[in-house]
Amino acid sequence: MFQKQEGGVVAAKGFYATGLHAGIKKVKKDMALIYSDAPCAAAGTFTTNIVKAAPVKWDMAIVHERRKAQAIVINSGIANTCTGAQGMEYCRQMAEKTAGLLALQEEDVLVASTGIIGRQLPMDKVTAGIEHMVSMLGNTLEDGTLASEAILTTDTYPKTMAFSFEIEGKTVTLGGISKGSGMVHPNMCTVLSFLTTDLNISAELLQEALLEDVKVTYNMISVDGDTSTNDSVLLLANGKAGNRKITEKNADYELFCKALNKINVYFSKRIAGDGEGSTSLLEAKVVGAKSKEEASVLARSMVSSILTKTAITGRDANWGRFLCAMGYSGIVFEPENVDLYFASKVGKVQVVSQGMAAEYSEEEATQILSAGEVSVIADMHMGESSAAAWGCDLTHEFVKINAEYRKK
Amino acid sequence: MFQKQEGGVVAAKGFYATGLHAGIKKVKKDMALIYSDAPCAAAGTFTTNIVKAAPVKWDMAIVHERRKAQAIVINSGIANTCTGAQGMEYCRQMAEKTAGLLALQEEDVLVASTGIIGRQLPMDKVTAGIEHMVSMLGNTLEDGTLASEAILTTDTYPKTMAFSFEIEGKTVTLGGISKGSGMVHPNMCTVLSFLTTDLNISAELLQEALLEDVKVTYNMISVDGDTSTNDSVLLLANGKAGNRKITEKNADYELFCKALNKINVYFSKRIAGDGEGSTSLLEAKVVGAKSKEEASVLARSMVSSILTKTAITGRDANWGRFLCAMGYSGIVFEPENVDLYFASKVGKVQVVSQGMAAEYSEEEATQILSAGEVSVIADMHMGESSAAAWGCDLTHEFVKINAEYRKK
Repeated sequence: MFQKQEGGVVAAKGFYATGLHAGIKKVKKDMALIYSDAPCAAAGTFTTNIVKAAPVKWDMAIVHERRKAQAIVINSGIANTCTGAQGMEYCRQMAEKTAGLLALQEEDVLVASTGIIGRQLPMDKVTAGIEHMVSMLGNTLEDGTLASEAILTTDTYPKTMAFSFEIEGKTVTLGGISKGSGMVHPNMCTVLSFLTTDLNISAELLQEALLEDVKVTYNMISVDGDTSTNDSVLLLANGKAGNRKITEKNADYELFCKALNKINVYFSKRIAGDGEGSTSLLEAKVVGAKSKEEASVLARSMVSSILTKTAITGRDANWGRFLCAMGYSGIVFEPENVDLYFASKVGKVQVVSQGMAAEYSEEEATQILSAGEVSVIADMHMGESSAAAWGCDLTHEFVKINAEYRKK
Repeated sequence: MFQKQEGGVVAAKGFYATGLHAGIKKVKKDMALIYSDAPCAAAGTFTTNIVKAAPVKWDMAIVHERRKAQAIVINSGIANTCTGAQGMEYCRQMAEKTAGLLALQEEDVLVASTGIIGRQLPMDKVTAGIEHMVSMLGNTLEDGTLASEAILTTDTYPKTMAFSFEIEGKTVTLGGISKGSGMVHPNMCTVLSFLTTDLNISAELLQEALLEDVKVTYNMISVDGDTSTNDSVLLLANGKAGNRKITEKNADYELFCKALNKINVYFSKRIAGDGEGSTSLLEAKVVGAKSKEEASVLARSMVSSILTKTAITGRDANWGRFLCAMGYSGIVFEPENVDLYFASKVGKVQVVSQGMAAEYSEEEATQILSAGEVSVIADMHMGESSAAAWGCDLTHEFVKINAEYRKK
C-alpha cells in the first residue's frame, strides 16, 4: 500500500530544501530551510512545557489561527529559549528575512530552533545563512539530506523517510525529517519533525490527523524524562497531488492517517533508538489492559525508568524493575496477574508468570537483550487494550554527553 | 536544644541491635536485628508502589491495625518482592523465628527486606542468621554500627544519628539508622529508616508525627526517579524516658516533631548525597511560591531531572535545564518572573534574572558547583511559600552500578 521513496522532506511534489553551516555551531551544519512553491495547509503540535522557546510561540500563533504557511526556517545549536523580548524579535526577523527573499509574508514562515537554552542567536550569521540557503534550495535527494543533517544536535545520524500511496488514482507522497536525542520525553520532546505532503486536505483535518497521531507516536517516546522547551512537529500540505480536497473523515482521510502513523512511528523509533549515548532501542508493549489510556501509561512508565534503562544497558533481564515501574505508574492492577516477556529478533522468553519469576535461562535472556532492538511485553490480563512506547538504554556516553553539553 | 549522642539506633534507653553476614550476599553483612526490652508504640510509612514487597504488607498490617511492636528483623541482598505466597510465608517465618527466640508474639516483630526483586530468600541461612543475632544483641556504639552496616545495599557508607532533648525534665533520646542509594524517589524509596526513641507517646500521635514529617523529608528525595517496592520508615517508641505520656498536640509533641524532622532531614540529605554513584548532593530550594504544595512540586522536579543531574556532574551552570524542569512540572508560572541562583559553601551566584541569563562568570559558577554539596535556589516571585528537595548528580558510576546490579 505504501511505496518507499527517496528524498525525505523534498519527496512530495513542490517541496524544496537545503541546509548549511552558518556559524552558530563551531563546525557542524546548523541551519535548514524547507519551502513549498505553493501555499500549504499547516498543522503543528508543540511542547507542553510552560517554558516555551520563542519559535514555539511564533509557530503556535500561525498554526492555531492562520492555519497556512509556505516555508520553515530552522537552526540548531541555540534554542532561542529564555531569551526574552530580544529572542522573540530575533525569531520574527528570521521569518521576515526568509519571507523577503522568497516573496512571502513573514506569517508564511514557520521557525524552529534547538540547542542550548538562554543564549541569543548571532543574527548576522543567521541572516547570512538564510540568504545563502534561499539561493541553494533544491529538490534532489542531496538537498533533502542537507536539511536532515542541519537540524541535528547530539543525534548520531539523520532521520529521513518518505513514501507514496494512491488516493483516487492520484499518487500522494508524504515525507519528512526528524531529530531527537536529548530532552526527549512524552508530551513532545526536543523532537523536531518536519513533514511535507502534496495531499490536498483542509487545514482543520490536517491538524486533527496530526494531533491524534502524536498521542501514539512522539508522545510515547522517552529518552531522558525531560520535556523540552522547543518540541515541534510541523506538517505542511500543498495539495499538488491533485486529489479532490479531503474535507471529511472518509476512507481517503483514514488512508492518510495510516500513512501519517507509519512515518511518525518510523521517526519515533529512530529518535528513541538514537537517544543520547544509546546502544539499544527499548520497546515496551502492554497488552490485556483495561483501556488504551491505562496501557499507554504503563508502557511509558516502563521506558521512562532509568533503572529499566540501565538493566538494558547491562543486557540484564532484571524484570523486577519493569514490574516496579508499572507499580508506581499510578495505574491500579494486581501484580499477581501479570506475565512479562522479553523479545527481540533473537527470540522471546517469558520471565514473569503471574507476578513471579518464570523458569527461564538468564543466558538466553541476555542473548535476547543483546540484539540492539529489544521489546518488553507485559500482559496485564485485565482486558483487551494495548499500547506501545519507545525508549533506549542509558549509558556512560549519555552521562558524558550531558555533563559536557555546553562545552561543545 | 538537641544534644548529639552516639549509638544511633541503640542510643535510646532499652534498645538493642546487631548485624552480621548470614550468607544472603556473597561477602557483605546482610542481616540486622533491632529489639526493645519493653513494648513499643509502632509507627510506619511505606511505599506507594502497587507492587509491594512481602515485608511491606506484613508491616502495614501491624502498624495500621495493631500499632505496637517490639523488634525489627531486616535483611539486605534480596527484596522478597514478586515472590508470591511463598515469599509471604518466608516473611512470616522471619517474624516467627525472631519472636520465638525473644519470647514475643510474631505480630510483635516488624520485617524489612531490600535488594534484588523476584528471588526467594535462602531460609536456612536466614534462620541461622536470626539465631546468631539474638545471641549477639547489645546496646553499645559497636552494636549500633553493626546494624547500620548490615542494612546497606549500594550505599557507600552507613547512615546513623542520635540526639537527646529534654521533655518535662526527662532526657528523651531519638536515634536511628537509614539506607538509600537505589530506587530512590518521592513517595518513599528503597529507603529503609529505622528510628527508635524512649519517648512516652500514644501510637496514634506517633504515627501522625511520622506521616507529617515524611512529606517534607524522605518524600522530597530523588536519586533515580523510581519509587521502590520496599520503602519503609519504622519508628518505635518504648516510653522508657519516663515522661508523662504525650496524648495531645501540646508543646512536648511539637518538640518531638522538631526532633523527628531533624533526624529525618539528616538522613534524607545523606541518602540523596550518597545516591548510587553520586559525587555531589544537589539541594533545590524554591522560594516565593504561591503555596507549599506548588513549591514542593517545583523543587522535586528540579532534583528529579536527569539533565539537571548531569549538569551538576559536569559542574556546568546549565540553568536552562532547571527552568525547563520547573516548566514541565505541571505548576503554572510566568518564566519571565523567575530568578535563579546557584550556591554552595564557596559562594552564591545569580544565573537567571527575570527568566533570562543574568550577568555572571561561568568560572565562578563552576567553582560553586564543585563544592560537593550544592544548592539551586529558584525565586518564583508569586507568594510567600517555600520548599526544599534533595537529589544528587548522575555519574558513569551510576550507570555501571545499575547495569551490573544483579551480577554482584
